[in-house]
Amino acid sequence: MKHNTDYHLPASMRWIKGGVTAAEGFVANGVSAGIKLSRKPDLALVLAEKPVTAAGIFTKNRVQAAPVLISKQRLRLGQSRAVLINSGCANCLTGSVGFKDAKALGAALAESLKIPEGEILLASTGVIGRRLPVSRIIRHISQLIETASDTHHTQAAEAILTTDLKPKEVALEVKIGKQRFRIGGMAKGSGMIAPSLATMLCVITTDADAEAGYLRALLRRFCESTFNRITVDGDMSTNDTVFALASGRSGVSTRNATMHKHFAQALRTVMERLAVLLVEDGEGASRLMEVRVTGAKNSRQALACARQVANSPLVKTMLASGDPNVGRIAAAAGASGASFDIEDLKITIGPAVVVKRGAVCRFDRAAVREIMRQASVTIGVHFAAGRFEESVLSCDLSEEYVRINGSYRS
Amino acid sequence: MKHNTDYHLPASMRWIKGGVTAAEGFVANGVSAGIKLSRKPDLALVLAEKPVTAAGIFTKNRVQAAPVLISKQRLRLGQSRAVLINSGCANCLTGSVGFKDAKALGAALAESLKIPEGEILLASTGVIGRRLPVSRIIRHISQLIETASDTHHTQAAEAILTTDLKPKEVALEVKIGKQRFRIGGMAKGSGMIAPSLATMLCVITTDADAEAGYLRALLRRFCESTFNRITVDGDMSTNDTVFALASGRSGVSTRNATMHKHFAQALRTVMERLAVLLVEDGEGASRLMEVRVTGAKNSRQALACARQVANSPLVKTMLASGDPNVGRIAAAAGASGASFDIEDLKITIGPAVVVKRGAVCRFDRAAVREIMRQASVTIGVHFAAGRFEESVLSCDLSEEYVRINGSYRS
Repeated sequence: MKHNTDYHLPASMRWIKGGVTAAEGFVANGVSAGIKLSRKPDLALVLAEKPVTAAGIFTKNRVQAAPVLISKQRLRLGQSRAVLINSGCANCLTGSVGFKDAKALGAALAESLKIPEGEILLASTGVIGRRLPVSRIIRHISQLIETASDTHHTQAAEAILTTDLKPKEVALEVKIGKQRFRIGGMAKGSGMIAPSLATMLCVITTDADAEAGYLRALLRRFCESTFNRITVDGDMSTNDTVFALASGRSGVSTRNATMHKHFAQALRTVMERLAVLLVEDGEGASRLMEVRVTGAKNSRQALACARQVANSPLVKTMLASGDPNVGRIAAAAGASGASFDIEDLKITIGPAVVVKRGAVCRFDRAAVREIMRQASVTIGVHFAAGRFEESVLSCDLSEEYVRINGSYRS
Repeated sequence: MKHNTDYHLPASMRWIKGGVTAAEGFVANGVSAGIKLSRKPDLALVLAEKPVTAAGIFTKNRVQAAPVLISKQRLRLGQSRAVLINSGCANCLTGSVGFKDAKALGAALAESLKIPEGEILLASTGVIGRRLPVSRIIRHISQLIETASDTHHTQAAEAILTTDLKPKEVALEVKIGKQRFRIGGMAKGSGMIAPSLATMLCVITTDADAEAGYLRALLRRFCESTFNRITVDGDMSTNDTVFALASGRSGVSTRNATMHKHFAQALRTVMERLAVLLVEDGEGASRLMEVRVTGAKNSRQALACARQVANSPLVKTMLASGDPNVGRIAAAAGASGASFDIEDLKITIGPAVVVKRGAVCRFDRAAVREIMRQASVTIGVHFAAGRFEESVLSCDLSEEYVRINGSYRS
């Protein structure tokens, strides 16, 4: 996964501003509805002018929040009008009253918008086990709708945050001859330590014309190579949700084979970029770490090894400290279940080879320390067991992480 | 696993002092051999008066340190005379020179003791990828042997430590009628965060008479229920080693069915107690957490769930903070792969029920905070999916953990 901000886009694509409202046919907003004690924004809306096709993918946790279960069911329609997201309260482990609360919120929004309740998708993030302050939230719905606009995308991106430090939003414009479409998105992050239970939420909008089943298939495919390649295990929280909405307003249809290709590439790029932003904003993270495993016997082993190294608290604290205690990388690789001969093991930090033929070799420690001080560090683990490779993106583990997660109130 | 220090021993058993020299036929010692920069003790010896039966179990990591590979081979003899352990350097990822170094150490000790080289077992712990300062260590071997005695068990227990805060040793005396035998042991610990790569070393001595194969079988069986039930994954480090040596000096034979029963129970108790000491001394740990999963569909799921909760950084930071953010426990349980109906989920903290029928219930927060301030906290996760249960012992995650592991030098 690429993680440099300046990475090469095809000539047909360019980054634009606008987040979830970059695509035509959408407005957004975020307000403070008093869910968070901090009074920070905690209620977000993404609203389509007309019903749009919609798809979603969700957590695989056995414990799923009320909004997840409701949205799953509503997406069977394949058509939606609005996404309502609150932060500060996950509405999970709230039993049957949690369902009623979530439905009441949706009903209030539906009534204000004069649309069917079933066209509203819901997501929540925050503390588990606490009820939503429904009537307080409902009192803010008219304000949320009235001031929604195509310039309020950052307000929406801010209102979905929990322990994240900054809003995360991206948008791409794709021009193919005289045709043009846009894809934008926003996301909220994550604890960046595995197995992470911090919720990952993402809303993607496009003005391309795309069927719901098509959107869902692409989301599922690209999640594997984007959100599921960051050490936040996307399927671990009780509330993880990725929505995609397509207005078709650009007139560009993904049923056209060429346009499909461009759309898929752009969607993947948007998801990739959002995944990188999630890692960069990981709790207490000061730098990125990409773990790239090559020469593995099969793809499963390559991924298992990349995850094991990327998730190792000892590797992550090593990165925070800047001291190349490279044995920790080898030990994590050896514990991953990947099969390799120790004599074939090679490990690199940036361009520097630090382990060769299964032994730590002489390397310029000052130079490697310098590499480890960069904003982004690539750790390579090379076997000679096959031709498979995988990479996982992670970040360092600082004392700040513990501070944030210890003090996050229930 | 019991973790209170005052837990009930059968009338036949009592805790005694003496660690690895409590059993007759063994002396021990620990000295500073200049491996650690800190000049703290870093070379330990457990020496039997005569050759004794010996068994060991080792890490399952693909990357194994030179002393692990050498000791494995030597144990095929089933007979040993001495265990030489150094801390400060793992002698791992050191290639063929690492083997030569380890063998040279063993040879020097064998020569001084005038015994065959093959009767010396080796273990190392410390930084991976650095060579042992062999000649410096060899210069301290005569001192190590000369001052070895049956009162120097704590010196040995101290010399095997790395980031541990205190030596960990125990001993039991078992009296059955007029027969009496002893089992003692020492261990070094561990990072207490999973998947931990901190090395676990343990040496157990007894004056019971036991065959090597019998010892190994018991070690293997009890490791499953002791060291492998603490969140330190015992098979993850490159150097994990558990040795057991039996001198037979008590005249009590484990071939006798009654004595076998008593011996097995005592060995298990010693290993259990050492496992608890390892957790209590976990890096930066301020309290113990026992996660007990009941009502699981099968034993595998019960253990997976207990581990997932016990290893969850969010649960561990919750415990450090003292704030009952109980949704984190449910989310970890849901992410474990265990199958259960959310309506059946019940979670307890100490005696307090905090989640009932899949929803967080009203509970006395002040009382639960008080429970979480105790030195030891039991978290119960109850399904109604079957009759299986498992428990795992862990500890909280404090900022201190990161400080220790960030600053541990390579």
